Amino acid sequence: MAGSSFGTLFKISTWGESHGKAVGVVIDGCPAGVPLTSDDIQQDLDKRKPGQSVYATPRKESDQVDILSGVFEGKTTGTPISLVVYNQNQRSKDYSKIADYYRPGHADLTYDQKYGFRDYRGGGRSSGRETIGRVAAGAVAKKILNELGISITTYTKSIGDVHINLDQFNKDQIWQNPLCMPDYQAVEEAKSYLKTLINHGNSSGGIIESYVDYLPTGLGEPVFDRLDAELSKAIMSIGSVKGVEIGNGFETASLTGLENNDFYRYNDNCIEKESNNAGGIYGGISDGSRLTLRAAIKPTPSIHATQKTINKSNEEIDINIQGRHDPIIVPRAVIVVESMVAITILDMLLRNMSSQIAHIKNVYVKEKL
Amino acid sequence: MAGSSFGTLFKISTWGESHGKAVGVVIDGCPAGVPLTSDDIQQDLDKRKPGQSVYATPRKESDQVDILSGVFEGKTTGTPISLVVYNQNQRSKDYSKIADYYRPGHADLTYDQKYGFRDYRGGGRSSGRETIGRVAAGAVAKKILNELGISITTYTKSIGDVHINLDQFNKDQIWQNPLCMPDYQAVEEAKSYLKTLINHGNSSGGIIESYVDYLPTGLGEPVFDRLDAELSKAIMSIGSVKGVEIGNGFETASLTGLENNDFYRYNDNCIEKESNNAGGIYGGISDGSRLTLRAAIKPTPSIHATQKTINKSNEEIDINIQGRHDPIIVPRAVIVVESMVAITILDMLLRNMSSQIAHIKNVYVKEKL
Amino acid sequence: MAGSSFGTLFKISTWGESHGKAVGVVIDGCPAGVPLTSDDIQQDLDKRKPGQSVYATPRKESDQVDILSGVFEGKTTGTPISLVVYNQNQRSKDYSKIADYYRPGHADLTYDQKYGFRDYRGGGRSSGRETIGRVAAGAVAKKILNELGISITTYTKSIGDVHINLDQFNKDQIWQNPLCMPDYQAVEEAKSYLKTLINHGNSSGGIIESYVDYLPTGLGEPVFDRLDAELSKAIMSIGSVKGVEIGNGFETASLTGLENNDFYRYNDNCIEKESNNAGGIYGGISDGSRLTLRAAIKPTPSIHATQKTINKSNEEIDINIQGRHDPIIVPRAVIVVESMVAITILDMLLRNMSSQIAHIKNVYVKEKL
Amino acid sequence: MAGSSFGTLFKISTWGESHGKAVGVVIDGCPAGVPLTSDDIQQDLDKRKPGQSVYATPRKESDQVDILSGVFEGKTTGTPISLVVYNQNQRSKDYSKIADYYRPGHADLTYDQKYGFRDYRGGGRSSGRETIGRVAAGAVAKKILNELGISITTYTKSIGDVHINLDQFNKDQIWQNPLCMPDYQAVEEAKSYLKTLINHGNSSGGIIESYVDYLPTGLGEPVFDRLDAELSKAIMSIGSVKGVEIGNGFETASLTGLENNDFYRYNDNCIEKESNNAGGIYGGISDGSRLTLRAAIKPTPSIHATQKTINKSNEEIDINIQGRHDPIIVPRAVIVVESMVAITILDMLLRNMSSQIAHIKNVYVKEKL
Repeated sequence: MAGSSFGTLFKISTWGESHGKAVGVVIDGCPAGVPLTSDDIQQDLDKRKPGQSVYATPRKESDQVDILSGVFEGKTTGTPISLVVYNQNQRSKDYSKIADYYRPGHADLTYDQKYGFRDYRGGGRSSGRETIGRVAAGAVAKKILNELGISITTYTKSIGDVHINLDQFNKDQIWQNPLCMPDYQAVEEAKSYLKTLINHGNSSGGIIESYVDYLPTGLGEPVFDRLDAELSKAIMSIGSVKGVEIGNGFETASLTGLENNDFYRYNDNCIEKESNNAGGIYGGISDGSRLTLRAAIKPTPSIHATQKTINKSNEEIDINIQGRHDPIIVPRAVIVVESMVAITILDMLLRNMSSQIAHIKNVYVKEKL
Repeated sequence: MAGSSFGTLFKISTWGESHGKAVGVVIDGCPAGVPLTSDDIQQDLDKRKPGQSVYATPRKESDQVDILSGVFEGKTTGTPISLVVYNQNQRSKDYSKIADYYRPGHADLTYDQKYGFRDYRGGGRSSGRETIGRVAAGAVAKKILNELGISITTYTKSIGDVHINLDQFNKDQIWQNPLCMPDYQAVEEAKSYLKTLINHGNSSGGIIESYVDYLPTGLGEPVFDRLDAELSKAIMSIGSVKGVEIGNGFETASLTGLENNDFYRYNDNCIEKESNNAGGIYGGISDGSRLTLRAAIKPTPSIHATQKTINKSNEEIDINIQGRHDPIIVPRAVIVVESMVAITILDMLLRNMSSQIAHIKNVYVKEKL
Repeated sequence: MAGSSFGTLFKISTWGESHGKAVGVVIDGCPAGVPLTSDDIQQDLDKRKPGQSVYATPRKESDQVDILSGVFEGKTTGTPISLVVYNQNQRSKDYSKIADYYRPGHADLTYDQKYGFRDYRGGGRSSGRETIGRVAAGAVAKKILNELGISITTYTKSIGDVHINLDQFNKDQIWQNPLCMPDYQAVEEAKSYLKTLINHGNSSGGIIESYVDYLPTGLGEPVFDRLDAELSKAIMSIGSVKGVEIGNGFETASLTGLENNDFYRYNDNCIEKESNNAGGIYGGISDGSRLTLRAAIKPTPSIHATQKTINKSNEEIDINIQGRHDPIIVPRAVIVVESMVAITILDMLLRNMSSQIAHIKNVYVKEKL
Repeated sequence: MAGSSFGTLFKISTWGESHGKAVGVVIDGCPAGVPLTSDDIQQDLDKRKPGQSVYATPRKESDQVDILSGVFEGKTTGTPISLVVYNQNQRSKDYSKIADYYRPGHADLTYDQKYGFRDYRGGGRSSGRETIGRVAAGAVAKKILNELGISITTYTKSIGDVHINLDQFNKDQIWQNPLCMPDYQAVEEAKSYLKTLINHGNSSGGIIESYVDYLPTGLGEPVFDRLDAELSKAIMSIGSVKGVEIGNGFETASLTGLENNDFYRYNDNCIEKESNNAGGIYGGISDGSRLTLRAAIKPTPSIHATQKTINKSNEEIDINIQGRHDPIIVPRAVIVVESMVAITILDMLLRNMSSQIAHIKNVYVKEKL
């Protein structure tokens, strides 16, 4: 059944296959009056574009976005925003072989199992190109969050065993290097590690981290649509993600209550916490402190090294996947994670507007002076 | 806004506060014709009931479920099933103090921030008692999964640094010890660790693991309502969960593609995999192999040891939380995790029914003989 | 699948069978801070209570509502409000016969067709008692609408061929007579008509009209969730409704554009219309003028006169339905229609809050003075 | 907030403005394996195309549909189907004046009220061109319904006071005349009536009727998502509809129970009814007999005759709307009503699949022979 939409009030619906005519997204529920141009969207799409370094597939795709509806005289109208990116550099021949066998680590088999057959060209709907719609919608969400003073920072935290060093953390470097790592030294180590893997036709996994500053308090709808629960779904719905954690995440499992609890204090007319193990969320609701989360990304499944699999005749065969593939998904997924965080935060922000009768009167009841 | 419902076709809505009159759940979309008695539900509720060992709060709550609707002559009718558990052992006096300050690690502050005030008695809606509705609904879901031959196994994987040993794994022990660990030796170590913590008025976190066998292929709705994404939301929506992972989860981040990919082979007329790092899900769709997931549970935030916080007058104070509290949430949360897995699996199973025109004809078109 | 919930942000889920243990509703998404007592709800429930005149079934049901959750210290907390009414005067014996045959005009057959069997006691889930949950939730919605200055007026417009005379319209009479007609003379005529029908073991249909004053502009979400579309669903979901119209409704079909268009004028610093054929809605959005709608209600299907039907053995039989039944549904349905209007209006009012970025800043951005 | 989607399992989301770059629809939840070509869709789009007679606007729009995703090798893949129609014959100059005033009978004012401003070109989002997406999606729905043997028939029942004569009913004529009336004599009368109106720069309303044959039993989800309730929303969400009725609709209000109840009989191994006042639905569930409904359509609001309104400076002015407009909406809306019926029926058909555990086993449990 229908599963291609995300969000309740700010709702996105992506569509399109890797090697179909186009991919796109419809954003429904975008508030009216937000200045928006295709450049606002293009700059984020360019961050996930392939062909920008040896660490990403050399496919050349311009991925130019076209706004088909929902914007008039430079502002959103409140009606659905339809965004489309036409597929250009398809080279379907590269993929013709994969019609016949199941690539390990891919969704070839499960799409066949679920739907009876599949669009095998470039992975069809299960291709990473689906995330173009997410990134385009995320750029729109970030425009609105920016107007409200909310900022999101996302980056590569680790590649294989190479982790960034928090002491070296430099936010400005994130988009200055092809690996999106905010630590120059870690970038060099990771490059070296990846070169070895490329030489062996292999690939690497990694971890992406994201944090949100200046978030309003009160976001998240208990008990199921908690902010952390919605973020988990949002992040886990990205193709290669295998784990999500909030705040100190899995580390919390080996801590004691005394170590893990964040103590409150009062400072400068504000309630503060001495620590932020919770990552800014209690009971599924934002407390206004920094929200933090991490996603575990698996290694690119398309590798050149020899693998074992079966073909459609159920014969066991050896394969060497040809074509152009990223040796690591992580850097190109950074903007995807950020986009899903933005979309979720904005949706929950809209959903929280009716939490108190006072907010409702704020919007509908004009004060008599 | 509304956030107390989970599921699309098999939808549950929980309600109730820790020290209100009752807690309960409405299950909407349960198929008709399923044999169901209150005993079916009570046996799972008894697994989360407090007061059963020194490792859980000594509060005595009988937590008897009453079926108010949706069952007739011993079978589900297809109409909403309303389940209620009346709160009995409330002792509100224990909690009177917490009206005045914010307990570290709890949602006291965020409920105030979101709603303007809160039902402070025993944590109100943010209390673990909300999970009674989840467990009751999960028991109904498992009745249906059982009819389809699907089984779920859930247990404590670790408490603090005490991990179960896979070589000692004994499924039969899960519900035979108060810690729900399937490894007798780990139980003894964990008990010893917890006793020390209890003596210090402290608490411990841990990890819960769950796996599902005999799952049909094809469950999960790309691209947002993937099986892993829905499970992540389901699990992260449980009060104390800070991380979720599928298959090898965060470990995948430090692996290479060659290590992580699961190779296919053909055996005994079935497609099999040489490994199952993916945890039974590709592209968000089940492949029929064992589905595996883990949840990181934080330590009980209510501890007797001295903590720092602020009161409603924004004064910094020292507190020692009194009353009866679990030194560890994990064992009582095992059945809650299992329930959310069951509810999610069943919902996705129903959602997948319309994935192919052939299934639809199966239901609606009578064959001519 | 799940179909027992209505509303998106202010969401109600009803449950319960006519002769089960209880009927009830869970309201999810009610804003916090609204003063609410069980009396607020009881006064509307009393308006649909049976046994109040010869024109309604003489069944004595006290229908006392109990608030089980979501209200603390006299105010809504923002968490789910669970309302329950226990069934008392069940007399199941009256209904034992109907297990064996299909009552004309009822849902006996279709429930069997859909679910394979049915709770036949008093119509089970298809009984009018289901509307108790709607009325209880409607009373909560009206509390909030009242705080915003919005008022709803609902009444019987016609019974059989007896129509109210607009010249005699007296709003104060609506709840002063057992037929809920705002025209004393029409009441007398209708009573006379109904007495004749009662003597013949027959029943009558009628029309209910509702209007809403002081509605904010902008409610309704194009293009599917229009205000008129949502109201139509809300009203048509009430058991005996067979038609819904907005503004001049079916009359518009025989008018010309020149007759039907409402011309604008400017008066007293306000945009006004010379007529209101549209009933206050254009393009699915409220324009701030009076919203008007009507519902056609069918005659009570349970009549004492002889009818033809079949039994479960597919034998054609004659039946005379015994027991206590309303000779007309309309008066008791007035409060049900009003409740569904209130719930829909409130839900759409909350949904409209995010239509403009300006509203969002109103709630989230504190002005710097 | 988001309101541009309809349906739960077969979900459509329309987008686009009258004079933007394009209009379109994304269909999510279409089952895999359905043969589909753009011709299947184009033939229905051609039925709503303008410029085909003097009774419709002479605008020439080719309205060619393009399938951008979701179909591979001639069959639906189960993934979202994105359909687009590019706007060609825009002539925006015709509409430039309407930026300055509010057209009576249109949504100009309410869009301004809701969103703060509007895309005034040709009515923007509130234009009838939005229905292109509905018709395209309806064509896909009908392909599936056809495979299941379900047929829908829709036609003009009345134009002004000219009603079709049931004795003259000829289904084959519906698409053979520009007014979509299944009665040749009524067509002639209506043409004559419309010519007079055209000469006076005026327009007419009318009624559309639709019936569905060979519908399975059991469709409709009590208590809110009843089949009749969902159909009412579907139909009322079409721009110019002001009333909806099921079966005998408003006529039922003046009938008695004895007149209105449909008696059952048993004939030829089937349960039949002696009448069908209910229009094939009881308790919101289909009973397998003919489903019937009607929609009241208002006269085209854009008329050439002089009208009074106000401009953006709140000055009262006289206007004569120029440009090309349909003197009657009804014939072009026939296919729109049919499309919404098809979409609703299909969605409810998919939703009913999980109503009984037996259906679920039908899909998932392979019989052992």
